[in-house]
Amino acid sequence: MPTPDKAAVREILDKVRAEGRDALTAPEGKRVADAYGIPTPREGLATTADEAATLAADIGQTVVCKIVSKDILHKTEAGGVLVGIEGPDKARAAFERIIANAKAYDAEAEIAGVQVQQQVGGGHEVIIGATTDPTFGKIVAFGLGGVLVEVLKDVTFRLAPLDTAEAASMINGIKAAEVLHGARGADPVDVDGVATVIERVSALVTDFPEIREFDLNPVFADAAGAMAADIRILLETSPVTAPVQPSQEDILAAMNKLMNPRSVAVVGASDQEGKIGNSVMKNLINGGYAGEIHPINPKADEIMGRKAYASVTDIPGEVDVAVFAIPAKFVASALTECGEKGVATAVMIPSGFAETGNQELQDEVVAIAHRYGIRMLGPNIYGYYYTPQNLCATFCTPYDVKGGVALTSQSGGIGMAILGFARTTKMGVSAIVGLGNKSDVDEDDLLTYFEQDENTNAVAMHLEDLKDGRAFVETAKRMTKKKPVVVLKAGRTALGARAASSHTGALAGDDKVYDDILRQAGVVRAPGLNEMLEYARGLPLLPTPQGENVVIITGAGGSGVLLSDACVEAGLSLMDIPPDLDESFRRYIPPFGAAGNPIDITGGEPPSTYEATIRLGLEDPRIHALILGYWHTIVTPPMVFAELTARVVEEARQRGIDKPVVASLAGDTEVEKASDYLFDHRIVAYPYTTERPVAVLGAKYRWARAAGLLG
Amino acid sequence: MPTPDKAAVREILDKVRAEGRDALTAPEGKRVADAYGIPTPREGLATTADEAATLAADIGQTVVCKIVSKDILHKTEAGGVLVGIEGPDKARAAFERIIANAKAYDAEAEIAGVQVQQQVGGGHEVIIGATTDPTFGKIVAFGLGGVLVEVLKDVTFRLAPLDTAEAASMINGIKAAEVLHGARGADPVDVDGVATVIERVSALVTDFPEIREFDLNPVFADAAGAMAADIRILLETSPVTAPVQPSQEDILAAMNKLMNPRSVAVVGASDQEGKIGNSVMKNLINGGYAGEIHPINPKADEIMGRKAYASVTDIPGEVDVAVFAIPAKFVASALTECGEKGVATAVMIPSGFAETGNQELQDEVVAIAHRYGIRMLGPNIYGYYYTPQNLCATFCTPYDVKGGVALTSQSGGIGMAILGFARTTKMGVSAIVGLGNKSDVDEDDLLTYFEQDENTNAVAMHLEDLKDGRAFVETAKRMTKKKPVVVLKAGRTALGARAASSHTGALAGDDKVYDDILRQAGVVRAPGLNEMLEYARGLPLLPTPQGENVVIITGAGGSGVLLSDACVEAGLSLMDIPPDLDESFRRYIPPFGAAGNPIDITGGEPPSTYEATIRLGLEDPRIHALILGYWHTIVTPPMVFAELTARVVEEARQRGIDKPVVASLAGDTEVEKASDYLFDHRIVAYPYTTERPVAVLGAKYRWARAAGLLG
Repeated sequence: MPTPDKAAVREILDKVRAEGRDALTAPEGKRVADAYGIPTPREGLATTADEAATLAADIGQTVVCKIVSKDILHKTEAGGVLVGIEGPDKARAAFERIIANAKAYDAEAEIAGVQVQQQVGGGHEVIIGATTDPTFGKIVAFGLGGVLVEVLKDVTFRLAPLDTAEAASMINGIKAAEVLHGARGADPVDVDGVATVIERVSALVTDFPEIREFDLNPVFADAAGAMAADIRILLETSPVTAPVQPSQEDILAAMNKLMNPRSVAVVGASDQEGKIGNSVMKNLINGGYAGEIHPINPKADEIMGRKAYASVTDIPGEVDVAVFAIPAKFVASALTECGEKGVATAVMIPSGFAETGNQELQDEVVAIAHRYGIRMLGPNIYGYYYTPQNLCATFCTPYDVKGGVALTSQSGGIGMAILGFARTTKMGVSAIVGLGNKSDVDEDDLLTYFEQDENTNAVAMHLEDLKDGRAFVETAKRMTKKKPVVVLKAGRTALGARAASSHTGALAGDDKVYDDILRQAGVVRAPGLNEMLEYARGLPLLPTPQGENVVIITGAGGSGVLLSDACVEAGLSLMDIPPDLDESFRRYIPPFGAAGNPIDITGGEPPSTYEATIRLGLEDPRIHALILGYWHTIVTPPMVFAELTARVVEEARQRGIDKPVVASLAGDTEVEKASDYLFDHRIVAYPYTTERPVAVLGAKYRWARAAGLLG
Repeated sequence: MPTPDKAAVREILDKVRAEGRDALTAPEGKRVADAYGIPTPREGLATTADEAATLAADIGQTVVCKIVSKDILHKTEAGGVLVGIEGPDKARAAFERIIANAKAYDAEAEIAGVQVQQQVGGGHEVIIGATTDPTFGKIVAFGLGGVLVEVLKDVTFRLAPLDTAEAASMINGIKAAEVLHGARGADPVDVDGVATVIERVSALVTDFPEIREFDLNPVFADAAGAMAADIRILLETSPVTAPVQPSQEDILAAMNKLMNPRSVAVVGASDQEGKIGNSVMKNLINGGYAGEIHPINPKADEIMGRKAYASVTDIPGEVDVAVFAIPAKFVASALTECGEKGVATAVMIPSGFAETGNQELQDEVVAIAHRYGIRMLGPNIYGYYYTPQNLCATFCTPYDVKGGVALTSQSGGIGMAILGFARTTKMGVSAIVGLGNKSDVDEDDLLTYFEQDENTNAVAMHLEDLKDGRAFVETAKRMTKKKPVVVLKAGRTALGARAASSHTGALAGDDKVYDDILRQAGVVRAPGLNEMLEYARGLPLLPTPQGENVVIITGAGGSGVLLSDACVEAGLSLMDIPPDLDESFRRYIPPFGAAGNPIDITGGEPPSTYEATIRLGLEDPRIHALILGYWHTIVTPPMVFAELTARVVEEARQRGIDKPVVASLAGDTEVEKASDYLFDHRIVAYPYTTERPVAVLGAKYRWARAAGLLG
């Protein structure tokens, strides 16, 4: 990208500001585009009919004439646009007609003249734009013009700034991408040329955050390149400030104290059954937390065998975490004491803040926390678990199945569902954290910790919004290169009817923006709560696949068909089995079985057939993942299948072959126990469903692809 | 629709046949269209340049000139099309150029002349066509022309013949329907005019089954009507025969004997453990079947206390069902004996037929069955259950939870998954039937029985194909007016790369055709195995909703958001709560709770709040269905919620108020028991998922809407 002429843009924007406008005129827009190397048609401003004629002659091609007036925003409506003008004479006439139309439309309008512009067309109409999203800030948009973008909303978004590869990914990110690649015998569009325009738009709005909305609509794209036929630039009406973020080191230091505290104070600790302060004390003690536990209660000397203090300030040593279990109205003064004591982090269980309309009290508490540099979780949460420290700072019950996944939830109800699901499935968990009102600590703080936490190898987050989408994306982008991040974004369908003056702005519905930008960050989005939980359970168990070749081995042809359907649904590629491998599989299966993929070993086969084919699937280096379809028979009962599969997979692992293996078990109720057994052996297995195991494998692949790990 | 001129079409088609052609020329196509009142541009055939000039003058508008030659199918490629011809002189010149081009393209081509046609355009380009589907026979297609249909495959299909309402439903059946209704400020298209063309195409291909493919592409549709600019008609190259179906009475008589037999013979009955003939005998006896059971085994006098016969012909009384449990090679002779005995139905468990490549043996067996009028289930099946008769004619284990859903599966593996799922969820079942190779009895035979079976109030079917799609649709259309039919169509993604010479044919991928036509038949399609099972479990429990107004009542705001997402996903309409009802709800919930919809009663509320709001939701006649979101708290524990909900719902039922109620339970593991309790009380409830209860309700609504029961 050539060096943009920032000074030129600065000058134009300052002038617009100075004149009290927030919309640029077309010639101003063109100069901004020129400064950033965004191709536009040849054009000029005519202030007289003769000038229009001269310009038309100079351009030497068919021209379009458009009114230029800061008072006329809807040019077509005002009769201010005439197209297909050929030659100087017709340009002269067009000038006069446009001026007459404009005066008739608005006699008061200040008219700068008529823009005479090379008429463009042909190729494909695309829209390239940028808008300012309340969550993510500057985002760029790309879509095909007309019906596709306006009716079918076939548009894609990315966070600005973006690089060339991300810009190119936008072109393939729309459903109708094929159109641009030469569908229906047309010439393919110059994809690099279009990507370059996207990249420059991204650079422009990044360099000038006061550009609120930016439309190139239409851009005519063909084999020769892309040219923006119309430019619309709107400025922010109020000053732009970026949210302030603590440094990564500061975040990490605070989160480290939260997760690995040497001492925890329980503000509002109680001996009385049913009190939250009682549950928290019990859970900390019974959960096995080995650090110091200090009950705070002015009315007690000792609680559950621990010395109680009237205030945190009375505690002799340092306090890393203060868990609050007192009514909202007492929080401010107790938090001030925490501040005076130098407590690092506060876990704010109480409700009665913003969620009940009491924003004022929450603001007050946040201000206290900021003043003393306390990082605060909540308020309005169930607390949090961190199993490596046997830490259960919640009013729920302890959870002790240690494992690799950290889960967070914005809602308490979803937190309880996480806990129940984890318990019933014995899901291995490193952390469960309630975020509640997210008055301070939010998802990117936690991600920053989990990124470097060797106890965590995957993260699953339920969220309804992001306080600072940009900070989240930056952290997630880094994190997802190493560990999968699953997000359940609730409120998918609450498409904000946003007031927007540009096409791009109007198209930027909440969910589509979230969807595209989370994907850009390498995040795996879960379509629902159950999927989030299943991904959380399964992803940490599966090794990272080394390539795209997925093979189905099934004892039931019927399952094979459904598993194939599920693969397409999950974006998985069924390997095209090479002839020698096909030969090898055929050696083990009956002549009427089907090699190919799915490999149908047929229903009546003994354990040895499952064993031989699974082993072959593991050992052949061209295969990267296995999906097993089991059919309950007397010849190979469920537990026999489960045990042989676990053994063969384990043997392969010991020889350094670790491929993702998932299984669907069709049969009588014994398949439930068999599925559990397989899960215990790091094989993601489900009874009565062909979709779920494949969906979990698909989620692992989505992550691995985005992280660039598939090679 | 005016009376079509069938004689004119017959004459044209006969002439085409007589000339050994299978493609109609454009003028022939126009005459066919005229005969069925399908609007086409004014036109005529010019055999000389002067005639072309005269025609252009007569038409009086811009014309298009096209070569007419049966030897030139690709007219544009041959330089045989010129557009935008204005006036007689230019028409004369166009004629000469086209003839010259055509001769240069193919000197041997026999040229009939040049078609001079009114040039059409403007409005929207749509495609209307018909093709011959291998499963469903004549189907009609509708889509928007260009990119939308060709790249995005935005096209919809219906079985022909169709009525006006079905034709109109096609226009709204495409994703971009909004375009035709006047999106982007355009005039809405004459929808009735387009529907009329669809209806006439449907009538044409129904009246003339030898029309294999039919394209109107493009049809120009605008506010004034629809006009077909190009017509392409291709005929079958071989004679057309319709599949022969037994009469409904005959089907019902046979199925009645299958499901309610007075006596069952087990061919291959055995005392030996592990033999299929042993399992079948045990299951019949232990399952509690009260009719006569006759073991057939030439080597035994008695099996399990029943007199054994050497052959079915030895049995003294009548035999309604013969269950085969002998190797494939012995089937033919034993079936012949059944024929001689006059056995009504045969249940063919053995494998070793078409599924192992032995089509010949299967054909032989089918021929025997046909000869003797025996209806045959299978071969290659697990057998079947019919619980009202305590009938368990399978080699699996008995199933005794009686209830309203009948399930069928084409695959044995899926059948076993049905059985295991049913057992673990205690699903109330009327029948489970294996269809296997479907050599005779298929889905529409069973539907015909279940339609009138008072023990069955819903049907769920797994299928990979339909032997006779048209017979299935006819039966399903009738059935779904009364009872829901759920179909899991496997092989969704196996889009046959079908050889097709028309646009419509090329667009008719298997799955889209199945999807549209199953919907047209009122069938609820399950996206996967687990959904099929959950729909089967839940649909019979839910009463039919009386209208579209769905209300969410939730204790967890977080669940409320996810439940709302799920409603949109499931096509449910969240009721817009009127002010008086809002007032009523507000009386029960804290001031910071949210009325509106979802109604967020907030998390800390006692049982009385759940109770009052659920009762209000049941009692207000404007509300038609309730979705409950429960959040596990100490104040309202899971079983307390389950019991109060079941009680309130039951009380309402006793007063004649029976609305569908579904629930999502977020909490610790106790919510599992609570969900089971609710299910036992006809409330479809699940732990750890917000999606599944809403999906089941959505399936009930999809059925009720298609059945016209929502008013």
